[in-house]
Amino acid sequence: MYSEWLFKITASIADITLDLWNGTALGLDNDTLDIWGIDPLWQEDGHIIRWDVFWNMATGESDSGTLLPLGLYFKSDVTGRDPSQWKVLGWLYNDIFYETTEEFREAYWSPGFVKLGANVDGPWARVGQQGPVLSQDRKQPPLAVAPDGARYSVDTERKYVSWMDFSFYISFNRDTGLSLFDIKYKGQRVLYELGLQEALAHYAANDPVQSGVAYLDSYYGFGPYAFELLKGYDCPSYASYLNTSFYKSEETHTHVDSLCLFEFDADYPAARHSTSDFVTVTKNVYFTLRTVSTIGNYDYMFSYTFHMDGTIGVEVRASGYIQSAYYANNQDFGYQIHDSLSGSMHDHVLNFKADFDILGTDNTVELTSVVPVEKTFTWNGNKTRSTMHLKREMIETEDDGRLNWGFNGQTQIHVINQDEKNKYGEYRGYRILPSSGTAHLTVKNSTNLANSAHWAEYDIQVTQQHDYEPFAAHPYNSQDIHDPPVNFEKFFNSESLNQTDLVVWLNLGMHHVPHTGDLPNTVFTTAHSGVQFMPLNYLLGDASRQTVNMVRVDYFNGSATSVETFGQSNETCGVRLSPIEDELWTYQGDVTVRKFPYNPNDPFYETDTDA
Amino acid sequence: MYSEWLFKITASIADITLDLWNGTALGLDNDTLDIWGIDPLWQEDGHIIRWDVFWNMATGESDSGTLLPLGLYFKSDVTGRDPSQWKVLGWLYNDIFYETTEEFREAYWSPGFVKLGANVDGPWARVGQQGPVLSQDRKQPPLAVAPDGARYSVDTERKYVSWMDFSFYISFNRDTGLSLFDIKYKGQRVLYELGLQEALAHYAANDPVQSGVAYLDSYYGFGPYAFELLKGYDCPSYASYLNTSFYKSEETHTHVDSLCLFEFDADYPAARHSTSDFVTVTKNVYFTLRTVSTIGNYDYMFSYTFHMDGTIGVEVRASGYIQSAYYANNQDFGYQIHDSLSGSMHDHVLNFKADFDILGTDNTVELTSVVPVEKTFTWNGNKTRSTMHLKREMIETEDDGRLNWGFNGQTQIHVINQDEKNKYGEYRGYRILPSSGTAHLTVKNSTNLANSAHWAEYDIQVTQQHDYEPFAAHPYNSQDIHDPPVNFEKFFNSESLNQTDLVVWLNLGMHHVPHTGDLPNTVFTTAHSGVQFMPLNYLLGDASRQTVNMVRVDYFNGSATSVETFGQSNETCGVRLSPIEDELWTYQGDVTVRKFPYNPNDPFYETDTDA
Repeated sequence: MYSEWLFKITASIADITLDLWNGTALGLDNDTLDIWGIDPLWQEDGHIIRWDVFWNMATGESDSGTLLPLGLYFKSDVTGRDPSQWKVLGWLYNDIFYETTEEFREAYWSPGFVKLGANVDGPWARVGQQGPVLSQDRKQPPLAVAPDGARYSVDTERKYVSWMDFSFYISFNRDTGLSLFDIKYKGQRVLYELGLQEALAHYAANDPVQSGVAYLDSYYGFGPYAFELLKGYDCPSYASYLNTSFYKSEETHTHVDSLCLFEFDADYPAARHSTSDFVTVTKNVYFTLRTVSTIGNYDYMFSYTFHMDGTIGVEVRASGYIQSAYYANNQDFGYQIHDSLSGSMHDHVLNFKADFDILGTDNTVELTSVVPVEKTFTWNGNKTRSTMHLKREMIETEDDGRLNWGFNGQTQIHVINQDEKNKYGEYRGYRILPSSGTAHLTVKNSTNLANSAHWAEYDIQVTQQHDYEPFAAHPYNSQDIHDPPVNFEKFFNSESLNQTDLVVWLNLGMHHVPHTGDLPNTVFTTAHSGVQFMPLNYLLGDASRQTVNMVRVDYFNGSATSVETFGQSNETCGVRLSPIEDELWTYQGDVTVRKFPYNPNDPFYETDTDA
Repeated sequence: MYSEWLFKITASIADITLDLWNGTALGLDNDTLDIWGIDPLWQEDGHIIRWDVFWNMATGESDSGTLLPLGLYFKSDVTGRDPSQWKVLGWLYNDIFYETTEEFREAYWSPGFVKLGANVDGPWARVGQQGPVLSQDRKQPPLAVAPDGARYSVDTERKYVSWMDFSFYISFNRDTGLSLFDIKYKGQRVLYELGLQEALAHYAANDPVQSGVAYLDSYYGFGPYAFELLKGYDCPSYASYLNTSFYKSEETHTHVDSLCLFEFDADYPAARHSTSDFVTVTKNVYFTLRTVSTIGNYDYMFSYTFHMDGTIGVEVRASGYIQSAYYANNQDFGYQIHDSLSGSMHDHVLNFKADFDILGTDNTVELTSVVPVEKTFTWNGNKTRSTMHLKREMIETEDDGRLNWGFNGQTQIHVINQDEKNKYGEYRGYRILPSSGTAHLTVKNSTNLANSAHWAEYDIQVTQQHDYEPFAAHPYNSQDIHDPPVNFEKFFNSESLNQTDLVVWLNLGMHHVPHTGDLPNTVFTTAHSGVQFMPLNYLLGDASRQTVNMVRVDYFNGSATSVETFGQSNETCGVRLSPIEDELWTYQGDVTVRKFPYNPNDPFYETDTDA
């Protein structure tokens, strides 16, 4: 019924759209226009208000619709379920607001009316190879191979994975996709649960649509958009794959090969040391579990990594198409990046639940800071020295449970168990360490979000674990932002965080001000955010000493005198590079419906509740 | 002559050292004790003062001397070149200061004197394989191979390297090791110079030696300690290697294979996008130039990376042995990590010079911030919206040239050329982006450093380029901290930074509070710091679209309908994994003298001016 309404509106200004955009209009068989708008919708005095904008559609060659805004906006009241009661509340073009369609038409056909350019699909917006091929690029580049096959076990029935001294269970659901449960290291649980809770993309612009967009993606669902991965490209050619399933609209859907698992040898070692007599270097072989969800325009790649020193990594990277804005009057909100296009500034904030259980469920968060200090010492008379020392403090209650990464990285955040000291009297625990840029939401008291995403306001938040607070968000939070099903702020009610079962809610993210380099797609190279959980005084030494993938070479007087390889496999074997293209032909794709573009051939397409 | 002095001192308390440490004493043939202390030395009222501490020596099996402090300290006046004028100013044991040797001896042999434990070398401090071998670990793990060989060119005579659309010259010197010059991208210079300037390791403790240590490593030199790299471990087995040379004490030294160059295929793609009809993924093949300098206990790995989207990365990782403190009375400065050992807290700060030339030498630094704002819009009546917008400002002079990474990563730092706008009117430039944790010095007005390392006080500092300000530091800065040869602070004299040739001085680093996981060696996995320089509105689109190492698979109804590989090489070829051990036997090692340990068999070893 919503499509019918859109058709009615555009029909009402068909004279203008035909004139403005070279004869194109919505509702014709050769239709190339699209309309969509804000999310969440506005609630004003009991009315449901929305702003929409016209877009050019991508051609079949690309998926570039979000790069093709046309700059004509309309506001409508869509309260209730009877479209005959809905009404247009005004039009906006070139920053001039017209209260009625008639007023807009009159202005439009007046002499001197300024008509602005359109954004049109073309090679600039397409993702295939473009530009001169570089001289050496046709030669096959390096690639990773696994000569001895998998060194991990996957129980596909139980979704149970073990690699070296780590093990965990895999869970998957429609709303948030992949989660890990019961992550154990050396037989001892470290995390009961680790997984995505919600992803926010909050835009800003002098453009009522971009200004009104703050996607809460679990509404669309990370499950339905976790497509089949491309072997040898999304993951190394030798990776293992698992299917995922989710329930939606009374059907169970299965995505084949949508999780991958693989070991990888990093391009740098785990540890090394040179002396004048010998050198030792240890390889850095780690294990990864990965999934990608393409929520409409954006491709989020989630990687959970496991390392020989006991470290666990959580990383998200963003690629795919940006959602852009029409360029006119948007200079304070982004760069102009194409003929009539502005890179619409936005914050990505992605919340993860990390339910730590460090040697049991009684845990505490300790903050250890390196702080400058002026100090006297017994050995230095009464002279003051300008130096630094450690400040150690425990977070006692949820009142102090909302934190940001501190100035100059000087404060470390540890999850410890005060009842479990090591033999030297130090608390055993895990440190939470930002490994690449993180971000929380820039906007304060967002008009778009109200109470629907208070989880986005800090970097790290700690609460007491409750089965009645299982998720930071709810997929329907965007449907009633003032009184959402889950209001994260209500988790903070002064409960004790001292030696109790606690949950750490972490935000990853990026402040994204798109520039020309985001065309056609944002690159994973720089759009990344990650944290690491590293053992801190947890064992008595570095556990990566256990691997045999290290070497010690002794030398004297210009030649090696001893090579110790610690029992590594050292076979001279051939690795056959399978013909990659054959494997790519096994790609099956997917059968579910994406958020957009919906079927461009059907102007009366009915919006699915999930699409 | 310094060794003679040490012998004299220890002889004066041989009765105590023999009693305290099981019969060991300095100066005997089976000597196992070492003495060394603060750096830089103190200058007090015209006197040169130093604090030293006794250490156990590592056995031949390890290089763990910096893990074996013994907790007995002495202060001495070593003013002038005549050791007969030098004198002991006091002894410190268990936080009690004794003004004379006699006073200390008297206390020591009194009833009730508390004697503390020693740190002794052992398996806990050794870097080889230890602990149970994990069940699957003897199988060969994945590794990278290069089936078509090198896809880059190296002119070994001119030290000129080109890879894809990048080219640069390699420079190497005693003080700071590797630098890159004339880095061009697509034929246009991006950086005139990029390289390390200095590395600071500033310790703190209630321990006069650790409290007094703030190593400025260029004094020791990064060149002499850039040892031969271990093939297949420090760099992939197929990497290319270059020798380095440096001049020292009237000799030219050559380190074979101490730089490596290689391409690598990251474990994640450069870009991807899925739609309901097709999926495209682009491989992330990048190029790396690497060197490792082991300055005594620490191994710094420096990697410069080049990416298909035009991004340049600068990364440092730290491994090797920590320098530790004796545990007693040091609780406010580190964790106890072994029987009598404290992980001595310290800051690593490493300064890099990045002399950008963006489309010429007239450049400006632009700060672009995403900031929360309350705003009204023409299309929204008089209602205020809580949202965000962009704030763009230029740094006009050196008075505003000293910056830190801002709150929540909200401020981007760009080097642009205001005279070079793209066709959309945006400034072409490069963004400087932290890619993993960075750090500047915690300590304010350090007593140890005075004026010798003002470069360490901020994250990013910008000055006008002058040939008379070529380096941020000088290797002799540690020799006169109050009036050092190069005082970085003096670079800031209000000069214009508006469209001028400018230099960006960047700090990487880590706040390191060692824990048990640093034993025996710190791991590169978590001890890393990096920045990226990414093109910003520099080209009109993402340059990585040029590579053929991408694929597009179209699909319909559960099967692939088209696979486009864009002319990639697709040969079915075998990769022979060379017997790794054979190659390791070609390791030649090195002939230069390291900072420590110096020859443990020679108690009268003369300290070299560089060692």
